[in-house]
Amino acid sequence: MFFASDNAGPVHPEIMDAMARANNGYAMPYGADALMDQVRAQIRETFEAPEAAVYLVATGTAANVLALATLSQPFQTIFCSNRAHIHEDECNAPEFFSGGAKLTLVPTNDAKMTPHNLRKAIISEGTRGVHGPQRGPVSITNVTECGTVYSVPELRALTQVAREFDLPVHLDGARFANAVAATGASPAEMSWKSGVDVLSFGGTKNGAMGVEAVIFFDPKHAWEFELRRKRGAHLFSKHRFLSAQMSAYLNDGLWLDLATRANAANARLARGLKSIENLEYVHEPQANISFAKWPRASHRRLHDAGAMYYIMNGQLNGDNLGCALMARMVCDWSATNENIDRFTELARG
Amino acid sequence: MFFASDNAGPVHPEIMDAMARANNGYAMPYGADALMDQVRAQIRETFEAPEAAVYLVATGTAANVLALATLSQPFQTIFCSNRAHIHEDECNAPEFFSGGAKLTLVPTNDAKMTPHNLRKAIISEGTRGVHGPQRGPVSITNVTECGTVYSVPELRALTQVAREFDLPVHLDGARFANAVAATGASPAEMSWKSGVDVLSFGGTKNGAMGVEAVIFFDPKHAWEFELRRKRGAHLFSKHRFLSAQMSAYLNDGLWLDLATRANAANARLARGLKSIENLEYVHEPQANISFAKWPRASHRRLHDAGAMYYIMNGQLNGDNLGCALMARMVCDWSATNENIDRFTELARG
Amino acid sequence: MFFASDNAGPVHPEIMDAMARANNGYAMPYGADALMDQVRAQIRETFEAPEAAVYLVATGTAANVLALATLSQPFQTIFCSNRAHIHEDECNAPEFFSGGAKLTLVPTNDAKMTPHNLRKAIISEGTRGVHGPQRGPVSITNVTECGTVYSVPELRALTQVAREFDLPVHLDGARFANAVAATGASPAEMSWKSGVDVLSFGGTKNGAMGVEAVIFFDPKHAWEFELRRKRGAHLFSKHRFLSAQMSAYLNDGLWLDLATRANAANARLARGLKSIENLEYVHEPQANISFAKWPRASHRRLHDAGAMYYIMNGQLNGDNLGCALMARMVCDWSATNENIDRFTELARG
Amino acid sequence: MFFASDNAGPVHPEIMDAMARANNGYAMPYGADALMDQVRAQIRETFEAPEAAVYLVATGTAANVLALATLSQPFQTIFCSNRAHIHEDECNAPEFFSGGAKLTLVPTNDAKMTPHNLRKAIISEGTRGVHGPQRGPVSITNVTECGTVYSVPELRALTQVAREFDLPVHLDGARFANAVAATGASPAEMSWKSGVDVLSFGGTKNGAMGVEAVIFFDPKHAWEFELRRKRGAHLFSKHRFLSAQMSAYLNDGLWLDLATRANAANARLARGLKSIENLEYVHEPQANISFAKWPRASHRRLHDAGAMYYIMNGQLNGDNLGCALMARMVCDWSATNENIDRFTELARG
Repeated sequence: MFFASDNAGPVHPEIMDAMARANNGYAMPYGADALMDQVRAQIRETFEAPEAAVYLVATGTAANVLALATLSQPFQTIFCSNRAHIHEDECNAPEFFSGGAKLTLVPTNDAKMTPHNLRKAIISEGTRGVHGPQRGPVSITNVTECGTVYSVPELRALTQVAREFDLPVHLDGARFANAVAATGASPAEMSWKSGVDVLSFGGTKNGAMGVEAVIFFDPKHAWEFELRRKRGAHLFSKHRFLSAQMSAYLNDGLWLDLATRANAANARLARGLKSIENLEYVHEPQANISFAKWPRASHRRLHDAGAMYYIMNGQLNGDNLGCALMARMVCDWSATNENIDRFTELARG
Repeated sequence: MFFASDNAGPVHPEIMDAMARANNGYAMPYGADALMDQVRAQIRETFEAPEAAVYLVATGTAANVLALATLSQPFQTIFCSNRAHIHEDECNAPEFFSGGAKLTLVPTNDAKMTPHNLRKAIISEGTRGVHGPQRGPVSITNVTECGTVYSVPELRALTQVAREFDLPVHLDGARFANAVAATGASPAEMSWKSGVDVLSFGGTKNGAMGVEAVIFFDPKHAWEFELRRKRGAHLFSKHRFLSAQMSAYLNDGLWLDLATRANAANARLARGLKSIENLEYVHEPQANISFAKWPRASHRRLHDAGAMYYIMNGQLNGDNLGCALMARMVCDWSATNENIDRFTELARG
Repeated sequence: MFFASDNAGPVHPEIMDAMARANNGYAMPYGADALMDQVRAQIRETFEAPEAAVYLVATGTAANVLALATLSQPFQTIFCSNRAHIHEDECNAPEFFSGGAKLTLVPTNDAKMTPHNLRKAIISEGTRGVHGPQRGPVSITNVTECGTVYSVPELRALTQVAREFDLPVHLDGARFANAVAATGASPAEMSWKSGVDVLSFGGTKNGAMGVEAVIFFDPKHAWEFELRRKRGAHLFSKHRFLSAQMSAYLNDGLWLDLATRANAANARLARGLKSIENLEYVHEPQANISFAKWPRASHRRLHDAGAMYYIMNGQLNGDNLGCALMARMVCDWSATNENIDRFTELARG
Repeated sequence: MFFASDNAGPVHPEIMDAMARANNGYAMPYGADALMDQVRAQIRETFEAPEAAVYLVATGTAANVLALATLSQPFQTIFCSNRAHIHEDECNAPEFFSGGAKLTLVPTNDAKMTPHNLRKAIISEGTRGVHGPQRGPVSITNVTECGTVYSVPELRALTQVAREFDLPVHLDGARFANAVAATGASPAEMSWKSGVDVLSFGGTKNGAMGVEAVIFFDPKHAWEFELRRKRGAHLFSKHRFLSAQMSAYLNDGLWLDLATRANAANARLARGLKSIENLEYVHEPQANISFAKWPRASHRRLHDAGAMYYIMNGQLNGDNLGCALMARMVCDWSATNENIDRFTELARG
């Protein structure tokens, strides 16, 4: 019953197999492997983007901060949600890689920025001439850190605000596959057709071992990105093993199948939990993440049975005994119905 | 009728004279001038701090960011008011000099942090282990950007919160003299006796040409600061002219006299303006800055007569004609009763 | 006939198997996996260093620059060979991660620093007080970029120079295993017993997929390193797959076996090549890298037969036709006698 | 008898007077002062460059590193002489402001780069694709740190090398006036007409208090420079006092008169010293700096009489008693014939 994160699950066997197959003698290092040509072609086809520049790195933070550093200047500010991973969970990596750019936090309830709040944040910056930071890129996360999903129209509305101010748009798609699965929109619609300039296309949380693609739909910054990747120590010599992961991930729509499974697992979990009295869902579960509150006693039962998930607003054995504790549960592609149902039953008590 | 800023006023004649006197032949460069020995002694005496390490730079931003860079690590976050100069008006200089540290903004109404909100902000950071930024220094501004003043007990309450979490405290004292004049407390009480570790002690806004002292009450970081100052290109070869300014500024309490004058000018302005119908003061004026709202027609009259000040919430000729516009008025040491009274009469209409 | 680099060879099957075995359900992410406990124990035992702090990253550049950033300050200079990988092949990553430290290049003929030249370089820096960079860590590479090897006494002589000036010592051990195999000294003798403070212990060039350990023999900087790793986007969520590689690599001395094989392959290559007339070895081959010069016609023959290696001083089809071209040949663990002998015969003509 | 540096001499009275005159009431801050308009016009006229963007800062290091940061990228290397001030005397400020660019040192005997050595250095970099630093700006110093001067043809030959590789050219002109005085060429010939893109035009070492102009002959990077200046904490609020210095410095050719005086003083010193037996000039004195060697006893005599200058290769009371010690002597505009002659006589013994 592991619902702590989708970054702790197993690698899908097809991806493991592809890595094993790639281990055949010598291959050109540093991204010059033949498999990378294949990955490039697959991504361009998947995204209907024949000109896109495509790069692989091994961590989601690397994908995000190298992309943002390429899009920004150190005297600018990057606009993002107050719950954004780049703000909360990257230990100042965006500030580091950008050379000291600032992050301007757009207030949200559920990690989804509204066009109104984004515009307001943009308007509030860049008003002090040389004294304040200048307006820089807008970074959107989809699926958000609260498990909510931007639809294509919602995404377009945000990127249009960025366009009004001539700002480039980055999409943190660590869970891009789950967003595509949730909306039914195409990868192109969920990215460049909706105004996204650069996408961090995640694999690690969705069945890969450690691979993320950075996709520049306009390749003009491609060489700068390559230099920043190397300077950031993120260029792999045995790059074919990144390529092999990504190639298998894209092959026959595996990426979308796995996300569909994870989303379905979360839906099953939600159905089960919502049938419990005294249990309150915090955000409507749209992808593979759920937040819900229930009494401490049920948490204890789950904990004693070995269930793994995060409690966001306190400690299981804290002293605010009356308070309902909020769980964050994430389903990955490998979550089983058996474990989900067992979790639900334990929560029910 | 210049009330736009205290950084645009004249240099006091005694400071000009001291600079002229310092221009006598050769002097050792880079802070080895004899005048700097005198400055060091004067500051140590003024602040009752015989061990303090004292350095001079030419801009307030340099004083702040070099101090903060010395106190922080690039993987930390600096706590400050949401209205702090280091956040709004230094074009990412804190992020730059610190190597990419973050600023965590403490919400305030009038730029004064409360112990409650500071503690809440500190508690909200540093909870994610290695994933989030670590807790770093607390930076307090006194006089604040809204013209409000922390009393000694208020200052102590804030630094005690920092102490709870073992965080160092920086005080942005660009208008420290005005805060001392406003409270009647001693320089030591307004700094180290209240828990401040490093002070940016401003001269430029209070009658100097361009000099700020950075005072480390505990000298353990002194050499690192010297290296950071040089690396920041802020070490002056003809340093004696910084020393001369600061020495004259401290001599016979000139610094406090000038701030007292500026505060008195602002008090006179406030008395005059408050007697006007339809004029609303936004923060209680405690030092040398006032914020007040009044109808557009009076702003026009002042503007046509050549009065200089900032309108914070719109444009004089904007189209939201019904709205009261908010003025920010700053008095420097040289403001005359005549100009203040004329300003008041024009505002009255 | 692939002799272009040891970073392009296959992963050893035992390491592949260990990764497959690690793919069993869920594991705690970010280095909290149980396998990492095992790695830590293995490294401490291998290096006779029960207190050592041990971390894994995926690239050699990451290991080097995160270690150096932890040991240095941005106003310092790092001493290294003029042929050091950190200088020539990391695209300013050391400058980036250190926040702008400088590299002072120690002149060498064969990438091996002498105590005399290192001392001279150190003495030449740090003489300008606050004006010049301060002396920072010494970074030694073993095996060097020229394929030469420091013996234990040579290593000690260098670290003693660093100690004279109280400077910490980093060892870039991307090919540490090959150096141990070449000298027959123990891992401890080749590192901390000879005065090394922090070791980049390479796996990638010696049969792993992408894993390097950073070993702090004194753990006092451990937490700072963890924060810098995360901030550098080098902390892996599915960390168990780094652990699995390193654990298998250390198991039963596989690391040393593989390096011994690679060194033996290079020795065989050298024996063959040295028997050729008109062929000149540039450095005495001590580990798994050879540099040798021979006439262009033989290079053409090798090239036409598909041999892969770098020519260092010109182009195969350049116009300086009379000049002997210098080859750089690297053997990895998987080089076969058949390929080596075929290469030799083609070179002979 | 102060010959230690031209940065320790007095400010010229006309510059002091201009600063006093500028102290007339209020002035717009941050470079919006009317005097700055005058400075801009004066510089454009002096340099025959009607489109030039002109900015003032207070230190030579700030001028250099802000200019270089604007011209470079953090993954590049800057080419400069092995004796360059930006390498030896700015405590890593170029690395800091550029975000971690490297400096590639061109070997020289007398701090003057030759086109041959510059080309060789450029060719040696940028050959490793993404692995090594990319080629960045060329920075030339005139007058050099050895007191030697590039003629217009020499300057052109260097900038042509930069042009071959499409690299921008920065000129560190902390002693630009002395170079103009030495060569008799026009300011335009010594800068943009010879291929210089950005000039640090020094005032501080030549009679000003602390002012340097940064001149972008092509203004396309002007706004970026303004942001970098602010972010570097080098934008002065009471900017009129920088403007006043620079305006007086340029008025009626004062800048060239003062440099001509300093050069003449150095020529007189050289004539005197060269007439002494056992005294050896190290570089031919072309501007206002001399390097010469003479026996220790004469140094003692000078020292006892209070003469100030640097000994470059040892200590006055060191134990290498037989060795001739090398003096570095710098004349500023205020050096008197009396002091020069007295110095000469003491050296003669």
